[in-house]
Amino acid sequence: MRDVRLVLVGLGNLGRRFCEVVAERNDRLGHRYGLRLVLVGAADSRGAAYAPGGLDFQAVADLKAAAGTVADYPQVGRHGWDALALVESAEADVLLEASPVNLEQGAEPGLGCIRAAMRKGMHVVTPNKGPLVVAFQELHDLAKANGVALRYDGTVAGGLPALNVGCRDLRGARVAAIEAVPNLVTGYVMDMLAEGIAWQDATARARSEGVLEADASWDLDGWDAAAKLVILANAVLGANARLEDVERTGIAGLAPATLQAARAAGSRYRLLARAVPGPEGGYKLSVAPTALDSEHPLGRLGRKQMGVVYTTDIYGTITMIIDEPSPIPSASTMLRDLLDIYVDDTSTLVS
Amino acid sequence: MRDVRLVLVGLGNLGRRFCEVVAERNDRLGHRYGLRLVLVGAADSRGAAYAPGGLDFQAVADLKAAAGTVADYPQVGRHGWDALALVESAEADVLLEASPVNLEQGAEPGLGCIRAAMRKGMHVVTPNKGPLVVAFQELHDLAKANGVALRYDGTVAGGLPALNVGCRDLRGARVAAIEAVPNLVTGYVMDMLAEGIAWQDATARARSEGVLEADASWDLDGWDAAAKLVILANAVLGANARLEDVERTGIAGLAPATLQAARAAGSRYRLLARAVPGPEGGYKLSVAPTALDSEHPLGRLGRKQMGVVYTTDIYGTITMIIDEPSPIPSASTMLRDLLDIYVDDTSTLVS
Repeated sequence: MRDVRLVLVGLGNLGRRFCEVVAERNDRLGHRYGLRLVLVGAADSRGAAYAPGGLDFQAVADLKAAAGTVADYPQVGRHGWDALALVESAEADVLLEASPVNLEQGAEPGLGCIRAAMRKGMHVVTPNKGPLVVAFQELHDLAKANGVALRYDGTVAGGLPALNVGCRDLRGARVAAIEAVPNLVTGYVMDMLAEGIAWQDATARARSEGVLEADASWDLDGWDAAAKLVILANAVLGANARLEDVERTGIAGLAPATLQAARAAGSRYRLLARAVPGPEGGYKLSVAPTALDSEHPLGRLGRKQMGVVYTTDIYGTITMIIDEPSPIPSASTMLRDLLDIYVDDTSTLVS
Repeated sequence: MRDVRLVLVGLGNLGRRFCEVVAERNDRLGHRYGLRLVLVGAADSRGAAYAPGGLDFQAVADLKAAAGTVADYPQVGRHGWDALALVESAEADVLLEASPVNLEQGAEPGLGCIRAAMRKGMHVVTPNKGPLVVAFQELHDLAKANGVALRYDGTVAGGLPALNVGCRDLRGARVAAIEAVPNLVTGYVMDMLAEGIAWQDATARARSEGVLEADASWDLDGWDAAAKLVILANAVLGANARLEDVERTGIAGLAPATLQAARAAGSRYRLLARAVPGPEGGYKLSVAPTALDSEHPLGRLGRKQMGVVYTTDIYGTITMIIDEPSPIPSASTMLRDLLDIYVDDTSTLVS
């Protein structure tokens, strides 16, 4: 049995649910993969806790579910101890960086934690788009220089392994185009508008259901989709793209009548992210609300569904769709990425 | 630049097209991955050729496109030299085993070639279902004992990386069910029947277009789908299943009126392969023609499309569909598998 010592930064929706998932199946992971996940440290915005013998995954999840802080963890919690200090002082194998996207602040504190972890020889797993958007190449270079893994499958389209397929299973191909619907809330709002619900009521409903964040612009103006497209394009296409390279149109300017007419014609509007060949080589990146008819591979996405389509020269056209009724799949990408680092069972899969 | 020396057994649709694909992009693979694929040996049913310095990929493809044999390869071709003798005598790194499925003959000659290659320390890549269906566990044990990779992503649903996603990206999850439409020709024939075309005309048309093999029973009676389901269940679910464990219903007994009524109601019949929890634990495996309504994730598959749906506890429900207009994606799975063995760029993807 091998111990894998984890530091988890960020205990919001993703970090907390990751703890719940592991609490419920850590024994099973040991049995199946010979690994025991040990949470030696955890940090949220109010403090941190560190215990070389391991924090209890469920106890951490319970503190957060009760709107508390891991700083209140019995004995080893400390108020005001920040994530970076935890990462720099902890003895651990992997940083799980799950703090919120924060592009305004240069993707901090996530970016700084990731850099510090890799310099210490820790592997990094993160579903946080910010650091990858701001410093994609730098972080890959740093991982290589330090001989550590950098995994971020959860940054694009939640629990759908869109990046993993794009990076691994399309090797050897020329990718002619990528189309993706990587954001849930914009589809939900546009569906409500198409049903005749007013903009203000639709966004209020999305907010009350917790699917629209306080900073509504991040979703509704297409920043979230654009950030995901940048990561897809860089990882799969080697595009070396930045956020400002994306031609970005949000959904706020859409006329309800347009949405209603599309619906009547059997189409659904989705915020479509596209990478297509550019006029001067390379790829042209765009995000825009787009009417998708029912024959489009992503034309029948429901409220809780995201998808990606890869058009390739030698692997045909591959469509992947996830139905994701809760944040658990997104949170579980950290488990997927962790196991991908530590398990090599592709020749020996039979349990 | 690293040379990867290949022996290719089987030069039918898949083997020949693999040669074409590599001929066209070997330079690019070198530039991108630092690998040079060298075809040191190739065998078909009439003979073989061996050249330590490498056969020309395009020349091999051309011989086969002209209905010839690699035994006629200038200087180094030999009539009557069989695949097993080639594998046993060749100095090579990887066996690509692409001979036809042959369950009647104990999956020979593929199985014997795979065993011989692994015992010599060669990695094995194969899109041939036969050896995996007949000897799944034995071959995985043999790979482990010899420290070699065994890759067979092309055995299920052509160029769709269904196995790769199931084996790697679902790690840590409980898989509640698998549904797959892994066979093309049965869907095509059922679509024709639903359009009112008679059984004899529909199968004749499929045969004349080259999509129905000489042994029509393999497809139409569901053997092909059942074989793929066994591989999926064993690889993804650890089910330890055999072909006779699949409750198998082919499409021959379908009443045309049933198909036509389903079509009128907006459904499409497909030969659906399913693994669902069994009454006494484990999984129940079945293959049967099934009406899929348009809301089913696989309910709108076109003539050249296959798909798989994984229902999981922590990664949501993941649907994958491939549109595969030619045999090239299936053939290219050998390139995918090869690169998966030799390339480790998941931390360092930027080209």
